[in-house]
Amino acid sequence: MNLPTLLPAIELELQQQVARLDTSRTQVYHQMLTYHMGWSGLGAGPEAAGKRIRPVMVLLACAAAGGNWQQALPAAAAVELVHNFSLIHDDIQDKSEKRRGRPTLWVDHGIAQAINAGDGMFIIAHLAITDLEHAYPAETTLRAARILHETCLDLTRGQYLDISYETRLDLTEDDYWPMISGKTAALLAGALQIGALLGGASDSQQTAYREFGEYLGLAFQVQDDILGIWGDEAVTGKSAASDLLEGKKSLPVLFGLGQSGPFATRWRKGPINPNEVGEVAGMLQETGAYVYAQKKSQEYTELALQRLAEANPQGEAGELLRGLAGQLLNRQA
Amino acid sequence: MNLPTLLPAIELELQQQVARLDTSRTQVYHQMLTYHMGWSGLGAGPEAAGKRIRPVMVLLACAAAGGNWQQALPAAAAVELVHNFSLIHDDIQDKSEKRRGRPTLWVDHGIAQAINAGDGMFIIAHLAITDLEHAYPAETTLRAARILHETCLDLTRGQYLDISYETRLDLTEDDYWPMISGKTAALLAGALQIGALLGGASDSQQTAYREFGEYLGLAFQVQDDILGIWGDEAVTGKSAASDLLEGKKSLPVLFGLGQSGPFATRWRKGPINPNEVGEVAGMLQETGAYVYAQKKSQEYTELALQRLAEANPQGEAGELLRGLAGQLLNRQA
Repeated sequence: MNLPTLLPAIELELQQQVARLDTSRTQVYHQMLTYHMGWSGLGAGPEAAGKRIRPVMVLLACAAAGGNWQQALPAAAAVELVHNFSLIHDDIQDKSEKRRGRPTLWVDHGIAQAINAGDGMFIIAHLAITDLEHAYPAETTLRAARILHETCLDLTRGQYLDISYETRLDLTEDDYWPMISGKTAALLAGALQIGALLGGASDSQQTAYREFGEYLGLAFQVQDDILGIWGDEAVTGKSAASDLLEGKKSLPVLFGLGQSGPFATRWRKGPINPNEVGEVAGMLQETGAYVYAQKKSQEYTELALQRLAEANPQGEAGELLRGLAGQLLNRQA
Repeated sequence: MNLPTLLPAIELELQQQVARLDTSRTQVYHQMLTYHMGWSGLGAGPEAAGKRIRPVMVLLACAAAGGNWQQALPAAAAVELVHNFSLIHDDIQDKSEKRRGRPTLWVDHGIAQAINAGDGMFIIAHLAITDLEHAYPAETTLRAARILHETCLDLTRGQYLDISYETRLDLTEDDYWPMISGKTAALLAGALQIGALLGGASDSQQTAYREFGEYLGLAFQVQDDILGIWGDEAVTGKSAASDLLEGKKSLPVLFGLGQSGPFATRWRKGPINPNEVGEVAGMLQETGAYVYAQKKSQEYTELALQRLAEANPQGEAGELLRGLAGQLLNRQA
């Protein structure tokens, strides 16, 4: 078992699920989904497809808990489809014109069709999870479906908070955690719990896998926030401090706004320009935001590794899961 | 068993399902859903809530097939939530500013939050159908969930076609049926099949209920198209010929465009103005479109009643189902 085996299997399952729309009269609708997934259109390829981290987590948790990962493929696809549904709608909501270097769906097809494409991706995710019934008892399939549905509701809660924060000036760190808990951590938590369930893990072991995913998501997001302000452009591939230019309410920014001083004063004056972004990043570092965010990231990393140890993943899959967690938690980019 | 018993039970189940969002920090998100459902905000009340025809169909089919309708309530709620999810996104896609006399969600909360509110409604529908497991075997619950998911995918297919038709000038009647089959007939068909399944109907009886719903939906939509052009304003409550003003590609219009003559010539020149709408409706009638649409409506009505007879609904619920079908098929408004 290794990633070069898992990834093509995930891709094949995803393609088969999305092919539900490969019917007469809905070819363009189908193409919208295959384009977004990175399989068709200009710039198609692995770069456009993304890393498929969430479905890999489903399969590794399943195998590491003692199950057959091939049987869990529909669940892996379901989780990745939910992730991509949320990206399609997110791009409309954020008015993002590019994703992974390519025009977003709403730019090419209009908002109306892009909303519908997201809806289609979402419903195919639910059909995919239902396909577990071919290999698992109905009770297990339903349990996995319910975990996925609850996860999706959490995702929309996080999205609601994120959108509502755009116009708010009174945010504090307390507003940050519930938002990223829904937007980033929920789907990783759900992916790992579903994988563990399908691998035959006990309830308490499922909880350990779930919480591993949750803390991993929180640690990952805080690191992403740090890299978005102080990251090395050569390593991250994003322009340095891009989050400051976008006015993103990340953990360091919310921490910095809680301290009076030059950063808070400058932030409240309005959008930050490219020519002052280095200076503002310095002001923010002066507030202790960098050290604080590193500390929070470290705390969640430790909690994640502790829960992973409790989950006690076995065999080759267990090794891969530990390795992947290490990569995600110690990344430079 | 009667509608005054069913309707409050449906409303209560719907409210309990939507209350999943009644949690700290998501009060406004919850209110968006309760407003759309007609329970809160300016103009709240039965007028704003709609007729709940689809959930009533679920419960009547269940009882008429020999089941306990109370146990089917989560499925009834799921179907109505799917309907309302589609309305929320449809209003954004069509840029509709009013629904049942009240501002639509996107008008009051912006497109981003309205997309998310629709997503939330959608996922609560899937959680609702999963709740069937409290009263039914897991296999039955999964079967109902799969029917609901497939129905949703059909809905998005119809929606894709509808949006894609807006910019097309080469449409014929052949393009009409797959579109309304997805947009109008699929959910009625799914509602009746799920109800029959939960009532313990055999596979062939489930198919009869399903096809009854499908033909009912087609007949209903064609009548809606007729009323939208030649309806009596005093009866329908809509301004007469409003569909002509909106340029809606209804069955009579597509039939009329298939005949050369004054109607097709006028239609192709551009939007129709209020002061010529009576004249254009007359031109369309001259093509034989009115008679043709009446004939198609009658054909589907007969097919619907034939399938209903095959389904052979029993008892009081059966009588109510026949009565409701009659009302929907012989409506003046």
